[in-house]
Amino acid sequence: MAAAAYKMISIPEAQDIVLSHTRPLGAVTVGLAGVLGRVLAEEVRAPDSLPPFPASIKDGYAVVAADGAGEFPVVGESRAGHLDQLPVAPGSVAYITTGAPVPPGADAVVQVEDTEKLPDGEGGQRRVRICKAAKAGQDIRPVGSDIMEGDTVLQAGERVGVAEVGILATVGAVSLRVHTTPRVAVLSTGDEVVDPATSPLGPGQIRDANRAMLLAAAAKAGAEVVDMGVARDTAGHLEGCLAAAIDKGVDVLITSGGVSMGDRDLIKPLLERQGTIHFGRVRMKPGKPLTFATLELPPQQGGGGGRQMLVFGLPGNPVSSFVCFHLVVLPALRKMGGWAEPGLRRVAARLAVDIRLDPERPEYHRCTLQWGPPPPGSAPALKAAVAEAAAAQDPLHAPPPPSHAMPGHGAGELLASQELWAVSTGNQISSRLLSARSANALLEIPCAAGVLKAGSLVSALLIDDLGGMPVPAGGVPVTPGF
Amino acid sequence: MAAAAYKMISIPEAQDIVLSHTRPLGAVTVGLAGVLGRVLAEEVRAPDSLPPFPASIKDGYAVVAADGAGEFPVVGESRAGHLDQLPVAPGSVAYITTGAPVPPGADAVVQVEDTEKLPDGEGGQRRVRICKAAKAGQDIRPVGSDIMEGDTVLQAGERVGVAEVGILATVGAVSLRVHTTPRVAVLSTGDEVVDPATSPLGPGQIRDANRAMLLAAAAKAGAEVVDMGVARDTAGHLEGCLAAAIDKGVDVLITSGGVSMGDRDLIKPLLERQGTIHFGRVRMKPGKPLTFATLELPPQQGGGGGRQMLVFGLPGNPVSSFVCFHLVVLPALRKMGGWAEPGLRRVAARLAVDIRLDPERPEYHRCTLQWGPPPPGSAPALKAAVAEAAAAQDPLHAPPPPSHAMPGHGAGELLASQELWAVSTGNQISSRLLSARSANALLEIPCAAGVLKAGSLVSALLIDDLGGMPVPAGGVPVTPGF
Repeated sequence: MAAAAYKMISIPEAQDIVLSHTRPLGAVTVGLAGVLGRVLAEEVRAPDSLPPFPASIKDGYAVVAADGAGEFPVVGESRAGHLDQLPVAPGSVAYITTGAPVPPGADAVVQVEDTEKLPDGEGGQRRVRICKAAKAGQDIRPVGSDIMEGDTVLQAGERVGVAEVGILATVGAVSLRVHTTPRVAVLSTGDEVVDPATSPLGPGQIRDANRAMLLAAAAKAGAEVVDMGVARDTAGHLEGCLAAAIDKGVDVLITSGGVSMGDRDLIKPLLERQGTIHFGRVRMKPGKPLTFATLELPPQQGGGGGRQMLVFGLPGNPVSSFVCFHLVVLPALRKMGGWAEPGLRRVAARLAVDIRLDPERPEYHRCTLQWGPPPPGSAPALKAAVAEAAAAQDPLHAPPPPSHAMPGHGAGELLASQELWAVSTGNQISSRLLSARSANALLEIPCAAGVLKAGSLVSALLIDDLGGMPVPAGGVPVTPGF
Repeated sequence: MAAAAYKMISIPEAQDIVLSHTRPLGAVTVGLAGVLGRVLAEEVRAPDSLPPFPASIKDGYAVVAADGAGEFPVVGESRAGHLDQLPVAPGSVAYITTGAPVPPGADAVVQVEDTEKLPDGEGGQRRVRICKAAKAGQDIRPVGSDIMEGDTVLQAGERVGVAEVGILATVGAVSLRVHTTPRVAVLSTGDEVVDPATSPLGPGQIRDANRAMLLAAAAKAGAEVVDMGVARDTAGHLEGCLAAAIDKGVDVLITSGGVSMGDRDLIKPLLERQGTIHFGRVRMKPGKPLTFATLELPPQQGGGGGRQMLVFGLPGNPVSSFVCFHLVVLPALRKMGGWAEPGLRRVAARLAVDIRLDPERPEYHRCTLQWGPPPPGSAPALKAAVAEAAAAQDPLHAPPPPSHAMPGHGAGELLASQELWAVSTGNQISSRLLSARSANALLEIPCAAGVLKAGSLVSALLIDDLGGMPVPAGGVPVTPGF
């Protein structure tokens, strides 16, 4: 079937189709050291309470609250890890450190700042003055106040971050059932495509940018990756590469190139013969020839029922590959790995410059999001709008201050004048991978004539961590009074 | 020196002190497969132009533009990887595929959609009708239009993401000088602290949450990690553990516990003997006993001059450890790894609920940021404010719509009504690690009496990727018309 024979669908349709053919992978058991970033396939409950004993919140003295203020003998010590069985009787106190068990008999802790050491008494008996009477329960964490025995501390389907690793350790969950992460093979195609190490290039050659990039993208998504090299533009060689990927038992094969080869698209006929093509053209810029197929395969040696392999045929232009990976492949990899909400997160951002619209296809415009005042290089028209809005007291457009405190070094009162700005990465032609340099979001730019003006609010899909986004000059102000 | 003898400083002061003692580590050479996430220690230039030849943007016919529309013999083909030397003379055309070199003589490409295949002519000569006259240069990428030979494609100091891997491959940069990532040792302390696998717990015991958590945090930051186990609460054992960390040649030692042990803080005296303590108390909640020291060490065997080890003494409460790691350790690890802007990124977010202020210390309140309308569970007072502001047409507070299009499944016009919301993780006591569960930011909450009202704008420091933040019911609307 020629490319034009495939119905042109929208990206949301393509995403729905891909996810409807994607199943979360099964579970595997990992230890605490291997759990970061994985999705739990089981609920985790606490086998015991935390704290397991009434614990002091302060360094100070464990007292009987009813004794009130006064001078007392210090009859013992409770230090973390050294359980003092000596009860604290009325009229006496025990020294205690933060986190240590409150001795039997005591029902409050008085912090050391509210006490005064006294000279030792008869027979070397330590003594202390309690300056402030305590209320019962004061500065004590009761048993189970952080976690109660039997509580669910993490749900199945929850992703394990840094804090969750600590939570798992706290409740003794050192062996966890988590979703398997997908195995992903990456194959470039094209007679003109040569290894990146090739220098100088021969006539007509270009270096393979896509394979290293897609391997990195899949690895970053947590996948185990398999480098399948470059397929030549012959049906036989391509078929051999597909067979090799099947042999390796991967869950996903990502190819790039070969899907907009005019009269010699070798990918689609091969996928049609061996599986089912679900779509072969998508109304998007860049990435129109994006192709998706599933192959139903016999079980691997020793395995149970049949298995499925997803094949994503990405266009050869590196930007198209980059955009299509994030829009359709990444959500599929996330779903396989157990993510309940595998789609890209969407936020609103304000355009820093005018963007010329494409009248034929909606565009995924690469940009760098940053938080702050209008970034340097914002359109002059925007600056005028900001000034105008500032006059009208619009908090979204309040002007940047003449000067303000450094971030974290004083009070700031300008939070309301800061927002998320989308800075274009420049010329968006699909061959220019520099348009993805430093990009942390894809703007959803409508298909229309004319220009989308600087200052417009647009939706943006997050494709990279904003924890590394550009910092505006002067920084972002802090909460007033902080 | 007793803990109280250390001057209480602010967190920005602490951050400045830490970074002033932190140096970017030297450079090391890595291959393309190991470069993701690293910071370049050298500028990368293109050794040749991209495209290296005039390349077609479309599938179609390479023509002489001056020939205009009409019927022409197809004298050859240019396919990617197969350089056709046959020149295209006036009055003839050549078939060409996307990305293929434009043959000599041709100066424009006419896309196949603007052509019509004709019956073969005399002697089987292929023929085509060019329906639309082309302008010179049409649908051709000139040599160097994406990257010009000698261009700097990536700067020293730039972090390598997915796109940058592709850019490096494109220019043949397969061996890169990048900053070394730090080696980080993690040590827990405390006689009460037992391995997470311990079940049931003995009297007075608690499981070690911090070590697994801090190892995960350092690994996530790109560090090579070394697990140093648990030090007992004796000066001798602790000193042995420090010596072991020094022996392993790590750049950083992170300890947790032992710095708020009342009269038995063993960490500070040890660090005072072996190095320099730069601070031992910080005005923050949680994390007040945070301690930072540097040790000047003799060179390792075979090494050059002396070396330095940073030691971070984090408090034992797991939340304090978590917060202190992100506020002071993470920026240091980033700076060592070459980040030019190593601090946490700051954004503004609107509080979903009232937060009670602490009158003694500014607080780093754990929260989950999400983009959208006010999240479920927002304070009733906020809902009233939203309704009121909506009446006043404040775009920051426009009400959520009765219903709107699903994300990506139609037009949305509600972008301006959505913003970043901070949902508290609940009870913030420093022993309760569940308050860090799903947290992706630390709110900067001022030190004051009373309550910070829901709907207030507060500054928030990003500590996790927003790419996994919660998705509001109904999603976030898209750019109008997309």
